Amino acid sequence: MFFIIGLGLCDEKDITIRGLEAIKSATRVYLEAYTSILMVQKAQLESFYGKEIIVADRDLVECGSDEILKDADKEDVCLLVVGDPFGATTHTDILLRARHLGIPTRVIHNASIINAVGASGLQLYNFGQTVSLVFFTETWKPDSFYDRIKENAEGGLHTLLLLDIKVKEQSEENLARGRKIYEPPRYMTVRQAVSQLLEIEALREEGVLDADKTLAVAMGRVGGLDNQRILAGPLSSFLRAPPDAFGPPLHSMIIVGKRLHHLEVEYGEVFAETLGEVVALSESDLEGEARYELRDKGRKEGREKWRDVASKVYGLVLD
Amino acid sequence: MFFIIGLGLCDEKDITIRGLEAIKSATRVYLEAYTSILMVQKAQLESFYGKEIIVADRDLVECGSDEILKDADKEDVCLLVVGDPFGATTHTDILLRARHLGIPTRVIHNASIINAVGASGLQLYNFGQTVSLVFFTETWKPDSFYDRIKENAEGGLHTLLLLDIKVKEQSEENLARGRKIYEPPRYMTVRQAVSQLLEIEALREEGVLDADKTLAVAMGRVGGLDNQRILAGPLSSFLRAPPDAFGPPLHSMIIVGKRLHHLEVEYGEVFAETLGEVVALSESDLEGEARYELRDKGRKEGREKWRDVASKVYGLVLD
Repeated sequence: MFFIIGLGLCDEKDITIRGLEAIKSATRVYLEAYTSILMVQKAQLESFYGKEIIVADRDLVECGSDEILKDADKEDVCLLVVGDPFGATTHTDILLRARHLGIPTRVIHNASIINAVGASGLQLYNFGQTVSLVFFTETWKPDSFYDRIKENAEGGLHTLLLLDIKVKEQSEENLARGRKIYEPPRYMTVRQAVSQLLEIEALREEGVLDADKTLAVAMGRVGGLDNQRILAGPLSSFLRAPPDAFGPPLHSMIIVGKRLHHLEVEYGEVFAETLGEVVALSESDLEGEARYELRDKGRKEGREKWRDVASKVYGLVLD
Repeated sequence: MFFIIGLGLCDEKDITIRGLEAIKSATRVYLEAYTSILMVQKAQLESFYGKEIIVADRDLVECGSDEILKDADKEDVCLLVVGDPFGATTHTDILLRARHLGIPTRVIHNASIINAVGASGLQLYNFGQTVSLVFFTETWKPDSFYDRIKENAEGGLHTLLLLDIKVKEQSEENLARGRKIYEPPRYMTVRQAVSQLLEIEALREEGVLDADKTLAVAMGRVGGLDNQRILAGPLSSFLRAPPDAFGPPLHSMIIVGKRLHHLEVEYGEVFAETLGEVVALSESDLEGEARYELRDKGRKEGREKWRDVASKVYGLVLD
């Protein structure tokens, strides 16, 4: 049996009982480690699962899937995937390949950002299509995400933005020369994402995004135990936050749609306060009592901005 | 601490290690049992978790949330939820209530139909907004779902339809008389859903749905171990399948959008074969060898219909 097992979002304890049982019974366990990342290292997984894990990079999963699937008709082989197995197209591919080889397969589901985004308090049925935002280069600035956000916005829907990650990528030069030298991993931050969004708005000028009138929610390490971070406010507030405000990867973002409900605004207030606090404190080097006052002032400002845009731009009647 | 814990989709083993640890540490454990259902009974959960479970109906969760949250500032209380905690608005409400009471909260995520729908092979980023389909009555046939499907269809997107469930509901008469007598549970089937869809299309006539030209995927017990069932084909094929073709609840459906990829068609072929087989066998009482031939003929027809609509209506070039 070929098992493809979702690990969830955070660490070794987010696997399901069923997933853990499958790992224990397997002769080989692979970890797909290039479409997303967990917040813990391989060794920690190995120690908790009591199994050796083979890291599967893009080459192996996309070109060497027959190696992964070898003997899976006679014994149990597991491919571990961060989030849910169907989060990335490439996992559907390997299931299709297994089917062609006549290998029985079983999928063990888990949480993914697609549903955990509900932690923002924004209702899942108010989301439109999910959009990926890739790193711009000097010469390549794909802007199709703008059309997708626009389509969602026209229906009043929220947009979940998945921010690019580059793990084990080759530079253009190394790729051209066939040298297997890899760049250090890169993860798009919320600030980079907001910059790219506003850069394309400035080029396209279709009024889909506005620094001060578009509300957004940024999420760092959703599902993380003590280090999940959710911040909310107009896009401009995110640009004022310091680069480290959102903590380590992974980050994702939500562009808030006009079909916003007052309960969603209420739930988001505490995240708006956090963003206000971060912005206020980052712009000052006050200490002691004065710093506490500044923090409270920042929180109040964050909440007021959030509510202000929700009522004046999004047209909500708030009590 | 107030924990709200996703149980996943199938049975007691779909909980995460982290969720199970929280249950073991709790003084009270509630199970929310009216927005969705697991495929196992409460006693099986209790025996596996080693804890007594209090079933929380709509009254308790929506009106008696302070009872659930009692002492959660001093001890651990868990609310178990089928799927992921943010699948239903009512769970956001109780988190907001906890926040107002100054009770610390923690969410433990899990799979929900919102991401497990990827088991259809349709890519998650090609889905638009999720739509709920409620039971029609003689006098009440809400059709706003039609507008939502239309919005998605105009963007070429797939629509996930969540089919209504009625658990512990009172009849209008019993409600009016204040009698706490409850109707037997009801779960909308795929056939009922297709009937309701086509009924509204016939009324509205906006060409969003067509019995023979709209492809759909039906899913029974997604995430179920041995009883998950996925079938695919044009809407009319689902009407020809017998009522029990999809097995026990829960069922959900996908209306396939025009932004369909040939890999999604390929992945769905096996589900189209299953639907073709079901339809063929249901219309005949042949036995033995003749029945095998009929089955194979049905599978071939199912696959051909699926590919035919994908190429002629959805415009895909298939090899």
